[in-house]
Amino acid sequence: MSDELKRGLEGVLVAESDLSYVDGEVGKLVYRGYDIEDLARGASYEEVLYLLWYGSLPTREELDAFAAELAAERTVDDGVLDVVRALADADERPMAALRTATSMLSAYDPDAGDDPDEEVTETSLRQGRRITAKIPTILAAFERARQGAEPIAPDPDLSHAGNFLYMLTGTEPDAVSEETFDMALTLHADHGLNASTFTAMVIGSTMADVYSGVTGGIGALSGSLHGGANQDVMEVLYEVDESEKDPVEWVKDARAAGRRIPGFGHRVYKVKDPRARILEEKLRDLAESSGNTKWLDYTTAIEQYLTDQGLLEKGIAPNVDFYSGSVYDSMGIPVDMYTPIFAMSRAGGWIAHVVEYQEDNRLIRPRARYTGPVDAEFVPIDER
Amino acid sequence: MSDELKRGLEGVLVAESDLSYVDGEVGKLVYRGYDIEDLARGASYEEVLYLLWYGSLPTREELDAFAAELAAERTVDDGVLDVVRALADADERPMAALRTATSMLSAYDPDAGDDPDEEVTETSLRQGRRITAKIPTILAAFERARQGAEPIAPDPDLSHAGNFLYMLTGTEPDAVSEETFDMALTLHADHGLNASTFTAMVIGSTMADVYSGVTGGIGALSGSLHGGANQDVMEVLYEVDESEKDPVEWVKDARAAGRRIPGFGHRVYKVKDPRARILEEKLRDLAESSGNTKWLDYTTAIEQYLTDQGLLEKGIAPNVDFYSGSVYDSMGIPVDMYTPIFAMSRAGGWIAHVVEYQEDNRLIRPRARYTGPVDAEFVPIDER
Repeated sequence: MSDELKRGLEGVLVAESDLSYVDGEVGKLVYRGYDIEDLARGASYEEVLYLLWYGSLPTREELDAFAAELAAERTVDDGVLDVVRALADADERPMAALRTATSMLSAYDPDAGDDPDEEVTETSLRQGRRITAKIPTILAAFERARQGAEPIAPDPDLSHAGNFLYMLTGTEPDAVSEETFDMALTLHADHGLNASTFTAMVIGSTMADVYSGVTGGIGALSGSLHGGANQDVMEVLYEVDESEKDPVEWVKDARAAGRRIPGFGHRVYKVKDPRARILEEKLRDLAESSGNTKWLDYTTAIEQYLTDQGLLEKGIAPNVDFYSGSVYDSMGIPVDMYTPIFAMSRAGGWIAHVVEYQEDNRLIRPRARYTGPVDAEFVPIDER
Repeated sequence: MSDELKRGLEGVLVAESDLSYVDGEVGKLVYRGYDIEDLARGASYEEVLYLLWYGSLPTREELDAFAAELAAERTVDDGVLDVVRALADADERPMAALRTATSMLSAYDPDAGDDPDEEVTETSLRQGRRITAKIPTILAAFERARQGAEPIAPDPDLSHAGNFLYMLTGTEPDAVSEETFDMALTLHADHGLNASTFTAMVIGSTMADVYSGVTGGIGALSGSLHGGANQDVMEVLYEVDESEKDPVEWVKDARAAGRRIPGFGHRVYKVKDPRARILEEKLRDLAESSGNTKWLDYTTAIEQYLTDQGLLEKGIAPNVDFYSGSVYDSMGIPVDMYTPIFAMSRAGGWIAHVVEYQEDNRLIRPRARYTGPVDAEFVPIDER
């Protein structure tokens, strides 16, 4: 037992994991050994979920069965949809609405934690499939309810990514949008033991159900130090646009005024985040297909300028958030849905880590160094 | 950076804290230096909340203002009560119902996280008061809805403990019950960095709001390795009762059959848990006032027998859960409400730790040791 205080648990190894590995020096991210670039370009989000949850990439037959199982679970019970509407009416923030609605899903799980003979891994994966399938339905229904529109029923013939965009807008997405959104889901699915993943693991370590773990993960991801950076980037791009200044001039002025430009720098990556490289390409594809190159022009100009200023040499490079915001905006997704979409993808990673950890479970219970008194004299209230 | 794996983070110091200290060798628990026995006997749960949240025991004037502030927050919005009814109708488990309803409270918080000029401590304490005041109302409404009864509106003239028992049963509790329940709340309010408290801290470390932290804490406490032990003890007492055997004979047979008797032994306490000592006394008072000594007789006989068998010398002593179940049962509280009542009390500790941690915040983000491959060759699905 060491007496050293491990602030933020930085560098503390709390578990072994086969799920994801980040090499920040060379800008490499792998899921179970597969380079994120290969997965984003060559595999669907459903394949990636299968890889994370079951340990290997599926064959065509395995994938078809798994995707059908997920698609069959997309419908959300009326009790939850009523709450989604009530939350929209009450102007609840999207991440808080998602936290409440996801928590409520357990009430309608016909098997919630009731089979004592089932292995915990099986229970967790079953709950995980159910939650992962229903989160997009919740988010789309919430967004539509805010606009005064009825929810659109999920279409089991569409992919996880395609169906979400369909439920959000009411029209089937074009091929570039569906492919781009699917890639964005893959890119955000896992990233080591970030705070929300670790939250899900601590909760899972008590053998609480996956509803509790994912609900906790959503809560953690809602924090300003965790999930909201792509929203910050997009708000900067809107601000640049409204200023009618040249983007580079705007950035110069902002930095001169002491503002930090969001979307640059990362606790782990010291070079350009591999996820940023892929999303930059997709932003280019979206601009080409729509003919609207504004966000591409702005981000390219800002990145070029900051590179010329020597930020890259200082290890401050564009991260995934620098591109994901403008990608989502190009698809017409409202800015306060970016973090919920992050949750929609990362839920796959939370579930994978909970399942992996519970296979060799140990209750997570650190200590605090007590710095208070030990022998305070109690004085009854009327003598204080 | 050490390469040692810290399984369960056992012994790892993650923060400094002035809140609570446990000396398991002598059976001592203090909150901010005050012995738990002095607090349980001499202070109300409201005084203990004030102590944990604001750092010192209140004067009479401070307590009156604080208790009035809490009491004024007890009413739960109709939108949440509707959900509580829906959860009861759907047969949701009480801890999951509490998780969902507590999460939903944020939708009706008139100030939820919207004042950028307010200090985080102020925001967290304001949300904490609101949540702590409303959890008893949620739980009582849920229990009544399960029985097909309408919720009873909180009575601001009653204490936190007394009002909960009133809302649960519809009649004002007698003095012994109110005092005992108040003591039980004080005894469960804090206990270092257990898994649910740590969950709330991890979530709070992202600067997520207190609704997220407490919702996560409830999820963690719902796990079978964390919150449910007093329910297990009570179920054993019911089983003894139904067997019509002598309790000691029952325990002998159960142990001979390899069963562990719940309510004995603790990761920290090696002698009798100080909270158990106090609750044993209150069980005696309740038995005296009701004239029903059954649970007292059973627990006394079982404890005496296990002591005679030398368990105490092995450091396996009665813990708080050995007595709290029969105390709650003596008040007519259903067994599956014991863990929710634990949450109702421990919420005070969760909030105190979140507030304390955020004052010198650092995002909690440990690492996993990656044990998977790094250069797996990607094969497209139709070639697998």
